[in-house]
Amino acid sequence: MKKYFAEFFGTFWLVFGGCGTALFACGLEKVGVGYVGVSLAFGLTVLTMAYAVGHISGGHFNPAVTLGLVAGGRFKFGQAVQYIVSQVLGGIAAAACLYLIFKGVDGAVVGGFASNGYGEHSPEHYSFLACAVTEVLLTAFFLIIIHGATDKRVPVGFAPVAIGLGLTLIHLISIPVTNTSVNPARSIAVALFAEPWALEQVWFFIVFPVIGGVLGGLVYRYLLESKN
Amino acid sequence: MKKYFAEFFGTFWLVFGGCGTALFACGLEKVGVGYVGVSLAFGLTVLTMAYAVGHISGGHFNPAVTLGLVAGGRFKFGQAVQYIVSQVLGGIAAAACLYLIFKGVDGAVVGGFASNGYGEHSPEHYSFLACAVTEVLLTAFFLIIIHGATDKRVPVGFAPVAIGLGLTLIHLISIPVTNTSVNPARSIAVALFAEPWALEQVWFFIVFPVIGGVLGGLVYRYLLESKN
Amino acid sequence: MKKYFAEFFGTFWLVFGGCGTALFACGLEKVGVGYVGVSLAFGLTVLTMAYAVGHISGGHFNPAVTLGLVAGGRFKFGQAVQYIVSQVLGGIAAAACLYLIFKGVDGAVVGGFASNGYGEHSPEHYSFLACAVTEVLLTAFFLIIIHGATDKRVPVGFAPVAIGLGLTLIHLISIPVTNTSVNPARSIAVALFAEPWALEQVWFFIVFPVIGGVLGGLVYRYLLESKN
Amino acid sequence: MKKYFAEFFGTFWLVFGGCGTALFACGLEKVGVGYVGVSLAFGLTVLTMAYAVGHISGGHFNPAVTLGLVAGGRFKFGQAVQYIVSQVLGGIAAAACLYLIFKGVDGAVVGGFASNGYGEHSPEHYSFLACAVTEVLLTAFFLIIIHGATDKRVPVGFAPVAIGLGLTLIHLISIPVTNTSVNPARSIAVALFAEPWALEQVWFFIVFPVIGGVLGGLVYRYLLESKN
Repeated sequence: MKKYFAEFFGTFWLVFGGCGTALFACGLEKVGVGYVGVSLAFGLTVLTMAYAVGHISGGHFNPAVTLGLVAGGRFKFGQAVQYIVSQVLGGIAAAACLYLIFKGVDGAVVGGFASNGYGEHSPEHYSFLACAVTEVLLTAFFLIIIHGATDKRVPVGFAPVAIGLGLTLIHLISIPVTNTSVNPARSIAVALFAEPWALEQVWFFIVFPVIGGVLGGLVYRYLLESKN
Repeated sequence: MKKYFAEFFGTFWLVFGGCGTALFACGLEKVGVGYVGVSLAFGLTVLTMAYAVGHISGGHFNPAVTLGLVAGGRFKFGQAVQYIVSQVLGGIAAAACLYLIFKGVDGAVVGGFASNGYGEHSPEHYSFLACAVTEVLLTAFFLIIIHGATDKRVPVGFAPVAIGLGLTLIHLISIPVTNTSVNPARSIAVALFAEPWALEQVWFFIVFPVIGGVLGGLVYRYLLESKN
Repeated sequence: MKKYFAEFFGTFWLVFGGCGTALFACGLEKVGVGYVGVSLAFGLTVLTMAYAVGHISGGHFNPAVTLGLVAGGRFKFGQAVQYIVSQVLGGIAAAACLYLIFKGVDGAVVGGFASNGYGEHSPEHYSFLACAVTEVLLTAFFLIIIHGATDKRVPVGFAPVAIGLGLTLIHLISIPVTNTSVNPARSIAVALFAEPWALEQVWFFIVFPVIGGVLGGLVYRYLLESKN
Repeated sequence: MKKYFAEFFGTFWLVFGGCGTALFACGLEKVGVGYVGVSLAFGLTVLTMAYAVGHISGGHFNPAVTLGLVAGGRFKFGQAVQYIVSQVLGGIAAAACLYLIFKGVDGAVVGGFASNGYGEHSPEHYSFLACAVTEVLLTAFFLIIIHGATDKRVPVGFAPVAIGLGLTLIHLISIPVTNTSVNPARSIAVALFAEPWALEQVWFFIVFPVIGGVLGGLVYRYLLESKN
């Protein structure tokens, strides 16, 4: 049971911290944190909670990670559904808290509410194909990093640094493209509170991150992992 | 006695470094560090002093952390008062030094002096409720991170990274909301030198961080911590 | 064979992540990541992949690193060609993916495509001599850091942090000078897709980083490395 | 002899990387790294070289650190002069290289050349007293961090992270005040190439950092360090 709490709180923190920074602090005049700050925030949610509860659940906080680890032979498929449910519920709870705070400013307009989008809803209007390639590639590399950094030949303790800062890097590259998902739980959570287009496009940020995650798990397993 | 010096110097550094960056370097034209720089500064005060004196006192530097650790069963209540007094004194000494330096520019106007505020004194005018939810949630997660990262199942040595960068993350999210407290010692220290509203609102940044800290300690203890 | 895959994927990630951030996210109005974000991105590509696949190939991802390690007595010359071929192919594959995504915005103009340049193609128009000195010095220090951080007297596990953040530092200094190469694979990869000047100048970013890398390897070997 | 080379190259890197970022990349339109980038650069010079050559010389790279460690009982006074000479020479060599590159842009005007200043030459015109207090306090805390992070009770390997990011923090706070010295070798090196005021004020950045460094060493030794 503690495992599911760990995934719930971890994904809560990922959505609250990452999307919260995007909503509250990104675009302010002169002192706003910009995409660098949002990228740092997403990465640090994972870095911090991987240290805090990684020893309890493994610290996935992301359905594409859970399924990628199944593909990589690192996680039992039989546990995946419970993990994913915990993650999605944690993300939704966080988005509800964000909504409450966001509405605490007079005249606040929800808009995209930090949702992911492609085509006309891509922040810089990248095409469907460009967005799909980006999400697949970045999630695949995220899983390669996760598999590699937790390989038993790597000194123990550094994995949260590599994985957390890997997520920072992924955001530095791709916020302008898709607002960066690589995580269906994060995409679903905020889409529920945003303008209708977000929920219409949310399938995209379930399908392509999962494809990427599974691909990354397979690449590590069959092309990189040593058998001895 | 060394424990109290450690908490004094650690909290001095937290206030001097974090609020100092906010006062001297945040809003300068073109080269100013903005909220990213202030967030980084607060986090690095804790990261650095946790390595420097954490082995002496545990490295709390924050009354909400001390009380949260009591709630989590990690710290004896009997020592809490001495710790909190050391922290508050350290913070005030730092704010006095900041005041001296700040007044070293002709025509410097103290204003809010990096104080925390809610409602009309929230940097972006977030409501009382939004600010209270923010401080409670962020302090609770700060304590979850602290309990988790110092759990005996986590490789030793990484806790200051997780906790320090956790504080950076907390600031990235919430400087626009409350100017980020999660620490009554930090709030009291600068409020003493600021415009009168800061001291009138300071109770808010004692009550809600403490509630959050205790909540975080209890969540880790009863929902996450393994008994064996 | 896994070693070559590791170098291929590692260099793919370096070019995709570093040059991708430069192409997609650097210069946006108000929220763009600027040179700080690009510097962070390049460094994090190496930090993350060094943890992920460093235990497989050593994590060079850069012909100047491979040749510098040969000069430093740390890597067998007989393997260098295969490593360098893997790196260049990985970089080119990444640049092709970047090109595909980049073209996913209507009216996108390729321009320099994050290529390196000197003289009139230096971002801030630094002279041939200034650019050559910069590339030689920075690559030399990069190799000193790599040799030192992987010295057997240094606690195991920290090398990817030192080396990755070393690359971040190198970019912070020198993006305005040469757009920062210190890596022929990175320079070749994007030059193939850029305006013609980039390919005309690419020899410069093969010659000087390699000179610097070899110099750095020799400095560490003969002036710094202890013999016992 | 290797110790002196290590201090020479380490201080070269500190001045080249930190002041180089200030000179080349800080104030550019839109993409410039600002004071956040300069702060990060100074810290990363120390982080990287402490991993690279810290096991050879201890990684001081700063006369105030060397003298502070003497005061703290960690370093033999008899070696201090050789260390300081190596540091100053390394810094001057770096400043000469920076000058060469800096002059590689048509019409480049040297100006302050990243020198430290107080009063009218403080970046934001802080008074003599404000600048003196700032340099003393920050160098003292830098030495407390150095003594604490290298204490034998702290897990080995993390000191370069704490110390390097401590220097980043120090710059985040104080670039607007004194352009941040805390290091006489850094101040002397660039003052030799700058407008005449820099050399006239350089005594200030020898005296106060050394006072601060010694004070920090004594504070750690007598108030914090455990005797068993």
